[in-house]
Amino acid sequence: MTKINKAACIGGGVIGGAWAARFLLGGIDVAMFDPHPEAERIVGEVLANAERAYAMMTMAPLPPKGKLTFVRSIEEAVQGADWIQESVPERVDLKRGVITQIDAAADPKALIGSSTSGILPTDLQRDMKHPERMFVAHPYNPVYLLPLAELVGGEKTSKETLEEAKAKLATVGMKGVILKKEIEAFVGDRLLEAVWREGLWLIKDDICDTETLDDVIRYSFGMRWAQMGMFETYRIAGGEAGMRHFIAQFGPCLSWPWTKLMDVVDLTPELVDKIADQSDAQSGARGIRELERIRDQNLVGIMHALKGGDEGRGWGAGKLLAEFEDYLWANARKVDKDLGEAQPIRIIDTKVSAAWVDYNNHMTEHRYLQVFGDTSDGILRLIGVDLDYVRDGHSYYTVETHIRNLGEAKLGDALYSTCQVLSSDEKRLHIFSTIYNKATNEAVATAEQMMLHVDSKAGKAVSAPESVLSKLRAITEAHASLPKPEGVGRAVGQKR
Amino acid sequence: MTKINKAACIGGGVIGGAWAARFLLGGIDVAMFDPHPEAERIVGEVLANAERAYAMMTMAPLPPKGKLTFVRSIEEAVQGADWIQESVPERVDLKRGVITQIDAAADPKALIGSSTSGILPTDLQRDMKHPERMFVAHPYNPVYLLPLAELVGGEKTSKETLEEAKAKLATVGMKGVILKKEIEAFVGDRLLEAVWREGLWLIKDDICDTETLDDVIRYSFGMRWAQMGMFETYRIAGGEAGMRHFIAQFGPCLSWPWTKLMDVVDLTPELVDKIADQSDAQSGARGIRELERIRDQNLVGIMHALKGGDEGRGWGAGKLLAEFEDYLWANARKVDKDLGEAQPIRIIDTKVSAAWVDYNNHMTEHRYLQVFGDTSDGILRLIGVDLDYVRDGHSYYTVETHIRNLGEAKLGDALYSTCQVLSSDEKRLHIFSTIYNKATNEAVATAEQMMLHVDSKAGKAVSAPESVLSKLRAITEAHASLPKPEGVGRAVGQKR
Repeated sequence: MTKINKAACIGGGVIGGAWAARFLLGGIDVAMFDPHPEAERIVGEVLANAERAYAMMTMAPLPPKGKLTFVRSIEEAVQGADWIQESVPERVDLKRGVITQIDAAADPKALIGSSTSGILPTDLQRDMKHPERMFVAHPYNPVYLLPLAELVGGEKTSKETLEEAKAKLATVGMKGVILKKEIEAFVGDRLLEAVWREGLWLIKDDICDTETLDDVIRYSFGMRWAQMGMFETYRIAGGEAGMRHFIAQFGPCLSWPWTKLMDVVDLTPELVDKIADQSDAQSGARGIRELERIRDQNLVGIMHALKGGDEGRGWGAGKLLAEFEDYLWANARKVDKDLGEAQPIRIIDTKVSAAWVDYNNHMTEHRYLQVFGDTSDGILRLIGVDLDYVRDGHSYYTVETHIRNLGEAKLGDALYSTCQVLSSDEKRLHIFSTIYNKATNEAVATAEQMMLHVDSKAGKAVSAPESVLSKLRAITEAHASLPKPEGVGRAVGQKR
Repeated sequence: MTKINKAACIGGGVIGGAWAARFLLGGIDVAMFDPHPEAERIVGEVLANAERAYAMMTMAPLPPKGKLTFVRSIEEAVQGADWIQESVPERVDLKRGVITQIDAAADPKALIGSSTSGILPTDLQRDMKHPERMFVAHPYNPVYLLPLAELVGGEKTSKETLEEAKAKLATVGMKGVILKKEIEAFVGDRLLEAVWREGLWLIKDDICDTETLDDVIRYSFGMRWAQMGMFETYRIAGGEAGMRHFIAQFGPCLSWPWTKLMDVVDLTPELVDKIADQSDAQSGARGIRELERIRDQNLVGIMHALKGGDEGRGWGAGKLLAEFEDYLWANARKVDKDLGEAQPIRIIDTKVSAAWVDYNNHMTEHRYLQVFGDTSDGILRLIGVDLDYVRDGHSYYTVETHIRNLGEAKLGDALYSTCQVLSSDEKRLHIFSTIYNKATNEAVATAEQMMLHVDSKAGKAVSAPESVLSKLRAITEAHASLPKPEGVGRAVGQKR
């Protein structure tokens, strides 16, 4: 993957602000230009949402946040930037002018992406001196969580540009998807518009209200499409006979009168009122901020679920998240410098997500062990036991765990964990981890754990290699001077 | 909710078979009529998929499975049935004939649902004597997991019929959604066909291949639609100004040339080949059975994620699953009869789902504690500490847990758990739970836990009420004669 060194965002609304958030949380400095008087407030709100969502989304070590600078001109913004993202309002003349101005001031090798949701890149790059590095990178709201960017080149865009853009987007957790040809509205918005148009007819003709239509989507094919798309889903529907059989069955419906395909609905004031009123009845009890929060929590939950898909190898957006986390761990702080410090090692920084709480909004019992498990994974990575090591057939297995629940973690609480090595030898690793509330620095739970180094194919304990043991000894020796934590060696129910 | 006493399924393909699975797993006997020579095999395969999926989906106590009988005629099938589901091939004359035959033989009060994906119920009920109890109940593949059934009445269908059908479907975990008016293809298939048609154009015109199109869906709006539908999503996109603002922004696109709305793609042999070839390139490395399995695991994972949505109150399909589980617990075995038995109480029966495993296909550390947590929840329900009790402000909190990992649970392993009460008093409950591999009856993990009865608002330990304590005493006294399990009172790393 090719890192982005500095990004420039031209236009800072909900879309531009979320692009900035992606870059900043990926450790990339961002220069933002937007003449809108409220640009700083809007970007600040989007960034706050993004930070909350990232904290729920991953326990992998995010790099130190990039620096956000608001500047006074496009020329100032693009200085030194190797990715420039244009997100100004959707008018071809305006966008073309801005992109031409970017082109003139930017490094000729800098990539220039447009957030347009429908305009052809050929029309946008018309007046550029270096059009080969310009393309559409069309994202989806909320940009800080949904990973897709449709990458579309114009007549003058080079193939290398699109491949480079795709590789760079991976370093901020995004999925660049390259289209073969340009077309107005690209792929996603064409599909969405088809549903939107048909949906409007169903509301206008009183077949159902907006809530019922949404329920039809989300209790059925919405869940299919979150993980596979349309063609793979239908391939399954075709059974062993596959796609050909499916088309033979379903194809003829195209000539039946099953959509309002010939007509465009007339958006009269009456129809707009009807839709708005039904939408109020459906969703009006919650404010937009609350709906946004719920949507983001659900999206994180779905990505977490898909991380466990395909037998734990990850699927779709979950696989992408796992790959992003691998990248973050590979680029995290170098291990050598910390091993000799005589203090418990800080490992995890996270927030209690909605998927982690019960009906009382308290963190569920097993989620504590999840944080403890991620904590011990963090220590193992520091001594060289990473994913590659595990894939090569050796690992540490937990054989015994003693948890004390000392307080309550609630929805949204910021938490961090530390780990102290109590003792170690060739096979054994004895650790004591603590989860703290970040606001109060009070311990909410502790875990004492015994782990064994194993040959995972043979399924038996074996000595760890010297490369691991030398690092482990450095930590163990540094921690030997620490006081034994309260609670070590306790049995359940034992008097203090 | 109104229970279904006996169901009849007329037609036993993938759809009819999955309806049967929903009923059987809900504890309802099913009579199946299908003259197809392979009907028993097909239904058996669908039922096996459904059982695997349910085992991953819920740890709530499913009732004893209903009895499945294959019969020789429609008349025999409908005897004594109060829900009859027609799922024969999609031809109006055939369906109308079958439904008229069902009508003549069935109890006049029995509900008759058709699985048609497009035919108007008015056309199907034309020749019936009791048409008021006939309706469309259109489900989505896989019917045993996706909860939606579009409920559509014809001209002669009574309003009460649709309401009754909706209530009955809830008892098998399904979401009945009532449409206001009938229309060909109803709501879901009209929306799907709009996307299908536009998608075919994009493939035909070489804008992208099938894999790219699927990626565009599943990395973006697919995840939005799995939780909210289209209108609620767009309401958020409209920001504080809401739906009206969104329509003002996006409405005009309808008159732009952003879809192929005027044309129907011609499915030439060349286009069919192209789609089938691209689909092979995209998904051909996996067989249909494997894709089905992955799809089902992902759907379960998404529903689990949504169970934690909206701050743990559940959202969409996750909320529905939580309500279904409440219903299952409320209808589970009566508690009195088991409390006095001198043996550990068996609580959970489950399977290791894909969302629970790591890259080695071993169950992740914290999932053991999840099963132990569900096990202690099960014991608590037996002594009257159920969701209502917790909502009223009291509960048992775990303060200490000691886990021993004795073996490895792998993807797909069937597990069960037992719980032994070691001691109890007014405030304390000391238990020892064991997770067994169902195939070998070997213990894979044990957990010793200390729980305290608390006033959850005040956040302090208080005595449990006599209604709870009397049941708890009955179990504690019965378990007093059991030997102390090996491992009780152990501290981490202690020599045996």
